Amino acid sequence: MPIEELTGGSITSPQGFLAGATYAGIKKPGDGVLDLAILTSEAPCHAAALFTTNKIKAAPVLLSRERVKSGGTLAVVVNSGCANACTGRQGLKDAREITGAVAEGMCARPEQVLAASTGVIGVPLPMERIRQDLGMIVLAADGGHGFARAIMTTDTRPKEIAVSVRAEESPLVPLSQRGRRIAEESPLGPLFERGKRVSFTVAGAAKGSGMIHPDLATMLCFLTTDAVVRPDFLHRALTKAVGNSLNMVSVDGDSSTNDSVFLLANGMAGNEEIGPRSPLAGVFQEALDRVCIYLAKSIARDGEGATRRIEVQVKGARNTGDARKAARCIAGSSLVKAAVHGNDPNWGRIVAALGRSGAEVRESRIDLRLNGFALMKKGEPQPFDEQEVSQKMAAEQVDIALDLHLGRGQATAWGCDLSEEYVTINSVYTT
Amino acid sequence: MPIEELTGGSITSPQGFLAGATYAGIKKPGDGVLDLAILTSEAPCHAAALFTTNKIKAAPVLLSRERVKSGGTLAVVVNSGCANACTGRQGLKDAREITGAVAEGMCARPEQVLAASTGVIGVPLPMERIRQDLGMIVLAADGGHGFARAIMTTDTRPKEIAVSVRAEESPLVPLSQRGRRIAEESPLGPLFERGKRVSFTVAGAAKGSGMIHPDLATMLCFLTTDAVVRPDFLHRALTKAVGNSLNMVSVDGDSSTNDSVFLLANGMAGNEEIGPRSPLAGVFQEALDRVCIYLAKSIARDGEGATRRIEVQVKGARNTGDARKAARCIAGSSLVKAAVHGNDPNWGRIVAALGRSGAEVRESRIDLRLNGFALMKKGEPQPFDEQEVSQKMAAEQVDIALDLHLGRGQATAWGCDLSEEYVTINSVYTT
Repeated sequence: MPIEELTGGSITSPQGFLAGATYAGIKKPGDGVLDLAILTSEAPCHAAALFTTNKIKAAPVLLSRERVKSGGTLAVVVNSGCANACTGRQGLKDAREITGAVAEGMCARPEQVLAASTGVIGVPLPMERIRQDLGMIVLAADGGHGFARAIMTTDTRPKEIAVSVRAEESPLVPLSQRGRRIAEESPLGPLFERGKRVSFTVAGAAKGSGMIHPDLATMLCFLTTDAVVRPDFLHRALTKAVGNSLNMVSVDGDSSTNDSVFLLANGMAGNEEIGPRSPLAGVFQEALDRVCIYLAKSIARDGEGATRRIEVQVKGARNTGDARKAARCIAGSSLVKAAVHGNDPNWGRIVAALGRSGAEVRESRIDLRLNGFALMKKGEPQPFDEQEVSQKMAAEQVDIALDLHLGRGQATAWGCDLSEEYVTINSVYTT
Repeated sequence: MPIEELTGGSITSPQGFLAGATYAGIKKPGDGVLDLAILTSEAPCHAAALFTTNKIKAAPVLLSRERVKSGGTLAVVVNSGCANACTGRQGLKDAREITGAVAEGMCARPEQVLAASTGVIGVPLPMERIRQDLGMIVLAADGGHGFARAIMTTDTRPKEIAVSVRAEESPLVPLSQRGRRIAEESPLGPLFERGKRVSFTVAGAAKGSGMIHPDLATMLCFLTTDAVVRPDFLHRALTKAVGNSLNMVSVDGDSSTNDSVFLLANGMAGNEEIGPRSPLAGVFQEALDRVCIYLAKSIARDGEGATRRIEVQVKGARNTGDARKAARCIAGSSLVKAAVHGNDPNWGRIVAALGRSGAEVRESRIDLRLNGFALMKKGEPQPFDEQEVSQKMAAEQVDIALDLHLGRGQATAWGCDLSEEYVTINSVYTT
């Protein structure tokens, strides 16, 4: 079944999702700046979510973590400019008040409203302005783009995408148990039957920039779908998709107190319910993966101060866990990132990062390619033209490919170069 | 017993140690640049050593790791400018040839000569020049300063220190078993006896700068002492000293392929042998700790591009392991380091780094002080004057103090700020 990216897609592309945003004076003022947004669904959603593994968790994380369990999610309210983390008891009170106000406006129970925040840690939310401006938010079916802008902090561009799974003709699906028995008795009978017509959309918006590191490698990510999905499968599909995408991004090795990924499924596409063994399970996972990988790559490319993206592909690792460790460690190495920034083919730093990653390696088996140039073969350095490799490194994306020749584990990680600009951005953040 | 720092001390301050250095064209040429050096002892040494935990180990690490076990060490030959790592079979051959030449010149067995290298990874040593220049090195009792300069890469100053343990009067030491039995029979008899007159020196030189991260947190460190020390105790004392000093430094989170710490004890002070239960064990450990902590702090202060040092003290952790994890994670956080660079009291980043460190924390118990200002008490943010705190952060050292109020674990870690200069240095390293 073809998966198509929608032109101008946003998290409100799936049926029944509405969003809106406003400026509530949390971020510094500026042309078209937005910092407070709501995402809602016309029908209650099955929701799956993943949160930061940081032991210090922001108030909205603590709140949403509990509420997502009770099901029937109708909305998420989010602000940028203030993380509402390390804000003590007041922080939790504020998060409850905001979600309570949103619930009241929608005639919903407070438990049906989730919350997320991103921004400076240790500063309370400007509640007076928020109380006043929350009611100004106009929810609309084309409100997704505003939502994607409202969650930005030092991001230079919004990160959003929507993909549709469409079937002109309904696919053939395996027969039910009963149908199969009948078919077995008649040797010419059909083994497959026509399924219900399907067409659903998966979309996402994310905020990246800084404090980005695996577990969980994104500040905030909102995913929506109108597909009918069983809650247990929804969670499993999200975990799998994030494992290969958002958890494989590193900007600076710092993981935040606010990282949250939400996936809301409102079922309005009316397809047959997707469970682990449904015929649509594969294509749903594929669509979700595609959205998450797009967002992960966008976050890497738009890392604070980044001028280009780094893609690290590791194969031949002992297992997937080792491949992930190796790829993430290389993508996250300050020295590798600085070398990429200067188009410096100082490949020894890549091997050094591999060696400290915790993955099993044997030096005499390592093959390393940088933008296609073989720099190490079976652990032996290869002669190369520094000038030529350096010139090729000036591309939009630098590709690092390693084969460890130890097994079948493989993984891809994304990062960005480390620039003087990263330091400048982060040394004058609050003052 | 007083421990005194020697003015102008170096690794050749302990009796019987000689060193010398020359320029062999490995580093870029410059005024007074040295890049090849030898440290020797007139008498064979008991040696203890710790090496990188990186799975990719440089040729000199592989060689020295084996040789240090055989004992009777007489010399270490070291070069900067080239790491001799990821150099395949040729690298090991080169390391053997260099140590062999040094051994031959000293009428020693090759196993008595250790090796260390630091510099660019993946490039072979310029053996022709080295062969030629090795013989030019003049060994002298005042050669320690030249040795300390020859191991520098992007270090801006040499890092060296010597401390002496002197006793004008010999100390009282507990009686031997036999003496104790006699004393027990005569209730007025002495429980202590006069020990042998002691006076010994412990010295060290280190090279820091980049690719500095715990396990093992230093590129190269050479420690010498003329004390008579039992080999098993020597190793134990080194491990302990490094655990509280060099393993608590982070410059950039990258640990190198070449990290090596050597401790050579030639016994020429003629003191009573120091073992774990000797009366001198405590003061020897103290002297060694002092040398190692001085070098650790010097490495942090002279981190690549650093403009000031960060000292992180964690107390009240569940245990020492947790305290170390927390202190190192904060000292190593890019965002904390960038904030310090800009005198930005963005303390939320400190708490976020604490939360992801892996140490047990309870937010509601955390006390945080920055340069003496209480910014968080029992997990609640405290009001403070941003301007005032920011001004105090402009000092030579920024002090971060945390009390987790969970136990008795405590640790101190050192790091440096992250400056635009770090990026500049590391983006044009080889090209």
